[in-house]
Amino acid sequence: MKPLHSLSATEALSNLVTGRISSEALVLACLQQIARHEPQIRAWQHLDAQAALHACRASDAMRASGGSIGKLHGLPVAIKDNMDTADMPTTYGSPLYAGHLPVRDAAVVSMLRAEGAIILGKTVSTEFAYFTPGPTHNPHRPGYTPGGSSSGSAAAVAAGMVPLALGTQTNGSVIRPAAFCGVLGYKPAAGLIARDGVLDTSHTLDQVGCFARTVDDLELLAHCLAPTLTDRSVETTARLRIAILNSELLSHAEDGTRALLQRTSEQLANAGLSVSQIDLGPWHAYANQAHRTIMQSEMAQALAPERVRGETQLSPALLELMNAGDNTSAVAYLDALRARGPLQERMDQLLASHDVMLMPSAPGAAPEGLGSTGSPLFCSMISLLGWPAMHLPTSEDAQGLPLGLQLVARPGDEAKLGTAARQIMQLAGRPDGAPLAAGMA
Amino acid sequence: MKPLHSLSATEALSNLVTGRISSEALVLACLQQIARHEPQIRAWQHLDAQAALHACRASDAMRASGGSIGKLHGLPVAIKDNMDTADMPTTYGSPLYAGHLPVRDAAVVSMLRAEGAIILGKTVSTEFAYFTPGPTHNPHRPGYTPGGSSSGSAAAVAAGMVPLALGTQTNGSVIRPAAFCGVLGYKPAAGLIARDGVLDTSHTLDQVGCFARTVDDLELLAHCLAPTLTDRSVETTARLRIAILNSELLSHAEDGTRALLQRTSEQLANAGLSVSQIDLGPWHAYANQAHRTIMQSEMAQALAPERVRGETQLSPALLELMNAGDNTSAVAYLDALRARGPLQERMDQLLASHDVMLMPSAPGAAPEGLGSTGSPLFCSMISLLGWPAMHLPTSEDAQGLPLGLQLVARPGDEAKLGTAARQIMQLAGRPDGAPLAAGMA
Repeated sequence: MKPLHSLSATEALSNLVTGRISSEALVLACLQQIARHEPQIRAWQHLDAQAALHACRASDAMRASGGSIGKLHGLPVAIKDNMDTADMPTTYGSPLYAGHLPVRDAAVVSMLRAEGAIILGKTVSTEFAYFTPGPTHNPHRPGYTPGGSSSGSAAAVAAGMVPLALGTQTNGSVIRPAAFCGVLGYKPAAGLIARDGVLDTSHTLDQVGCFARTVDDLELLAHCLAPTLTDRSVETTARLRIAILNSELLSHAEDGTRALLQRTSEQLANAGLSVSQIDLGPWHAYANQAHRTIMQSEMAQALAPERVRGETQLSPALLELMNAGDNTSAVAYLDALRARGPLQERMDQLLASHDVMLMPSAPGAAPEGLGSTGSPLFCSMISLLGWPAMHLPTSEDAQGLPLGLQLVARPGDEAKLGTAARQIMQLAGRPDGAPLAAGMA
Repeated sequence: MKPLHSLSATEALSNLVTGRISSEALVLACLQQIARHEPQIRAWQHLDAQAALHACRASDAMRASGGSIGKLHGLPVAIKDNMDTADMPTTYGSPLYAGHLPVRDAAVVSMLRAEGAIILGKTVSTEFAYFTPGPTHNPHRPGYTPGGSSSGSAAAVAAGMVPLALGTQTNGSVIRPAAFCGVLGYKPAAGLIARDGVLDTSHTLDQVGCFARTVDDLELLAHCLAPTLTDRSVETTARLRIAILNSELLSHAEDGTRALLQRTSEQLANAGLSVSQIDLGPWHAYANQAHRTIMQSEMAQALAPERVRGETQLSPALLELMNAGDNTSAVAYLDALRARGPLQERMDQLLASHDVMLMPSAPGAAPEGLGSTGSPLFCSMISLLGWPAMHLPTSEDAQGLPLGLQLVARPGDEAKLGTAARQIMQLAGRPDGAPLAAGMA
């Protein structure tokens, strides 16, 4: 058997079911991996090894007793630190909330506990899940950003510290860190996953997402959180029709990213899938502008109490965003909300005869430095639409940093997303999922 | 039998069913009433007598043939002129849309046609259903406002021109004209009635409502529009618990209105109902302020294209509102939207052991003059909450102008609203509903 910390959740689960491994052994392996690499990677805001060990022993005992168990029984999971936990501090990535202990678990945390997951701890979020980074390094290259805002969740999964993690995306906070850390990220359609107890920064845009190293794992986790997610029985058996997105923004993608998109299109076509390009022209940039207007307005409103309480402890980048929000008129905000209608119509037209759409997740691989989490350029529009999206880590750049692509579907087409994702990972020579970062296996 | 134009819809319907009257006779009686009084009252923006006669003859023929008929089969209905009709011009109360012919019917118009209603014509709306009045007079007193914005619908029902009419309310546009014209007005809970094809001025606040002269008629009409409205089988049989609203704004009610509220409370208590006062303190005024912020922002955004197209044809009052909207920040707008949460919690607490709430509909009777439609002071908060409300015309002031009260329930409690309304109309000595305006019988 592979080292336990490198098992996917699905692999671990089948071994737990047969009794080949125990949850305690699995959790211990993850804790050892954390002990080895956390000093360098710094993915965790809060880790409670004792509580996790206690929980996994109870989990093993419950399984042994033949009691009713959940879909994640005994599996370690990481929770982004912008989600409330009643037994661990929740800082929302801000010193204003150092040591803050919420009264109750976020709905998603409760759902995972109900399915028997072992909550290992809280992973580093950028400040209030916006732009200003925490201390996390990219597991593939120290000194490079892991992306944000779900920095710790993506890094922990990439480093084999945990097979599953939760994150959130308001702009690009699931897809981008997944891309930079070379793991899979999944943001189901807006509204599917309950946000109670998740930091509210932008009511219109905030969405919950998942990190894992295989498509199966992503779906396992997402289906525990969103009961209305269609199951795989409805996935299409017909030849998938793939749209390759073009728009005026595509020129901002680096050569390596454009080459990967081109190469993947050719692989898909050669494999017998229908592949054609759609062109969104200037709409892509309009959509990003509308996204910006909504986000700055809603964050300025949502975080106004925090500014009153401790403006000096807010980062310059956040204050700049909030000032832009304060200077946005209600009419401009409402115009931006309304822009979603025609954008969605346009996208529906373009995708009328396609099943899924392929596009970049980020302009290129993770940038050097920890001062920025990189560009959300290719994520904003999908967050605005609220459509389901998945990052697929299919390749590496010349320096060995992860590269990949973003797969998008219309709401309700999540099963097609999974089918296409499996085919793309297969064609990329990664049928068993994303590899751990070098030195982490 | 009473003159046909003075029959309630329910009375007319039972006579249509037994064949004692025909739809043609009923429509002719209404058209004659219109011919007599319209030159003075000016309730109609557009009237199509020929089309109505054609439709009622077809309706009679269909009934005679034993075909399947709807709940309003053969009944004349008036439609406020901010609702699209494919066969009649729709002006939205603005010269900018003189002669405008929409491509399709509004959803509510389609629903009424599907139930066999005869659409007599379009009734006068204030400019874009906001404040600037059309030419309509109060049927009870020429030269007095009928209220707005559903001025023509309320006046037409009060004058016996039609037994049923549709209106809309963004601020006080159903309850207030019902009050000034002495008819019943009903605004079911927000979201129950489809708004497709109804002029969109404020996405958050716009609600469709009904006018009639009896509670039965209001419910008949509302149930045709909102399939999810609970039917009367769930109405409470227990002793109703009535809350009488007090707040800092109640001091703005005129003596006659406060006296009527007091007298009605005593009548209800004497009749064995549980009656007690609740006090909203300053929250009522806060709610009205939040309502104002939302309305001005959303109207400035919604009507921006009209201003671009013909600013000189917009009224000063509308331009003033839109300028206020333009000067509202996104954060202030979002704060106002969020204010609904605590307001609703507060109201839920206060009403926890009550079934319905009684409060003024307007400060007093209809003011003199056609330049203003009167004060929405006691309507704004209920529009903001989106709760179901009914105006009950129970009395008159010393000059013979209608006075009445507003009955409010929580969403889902529409059946209790109907039960309480019947009891209050009974106690007011008007078990058969509101009388027609003097000289109109």
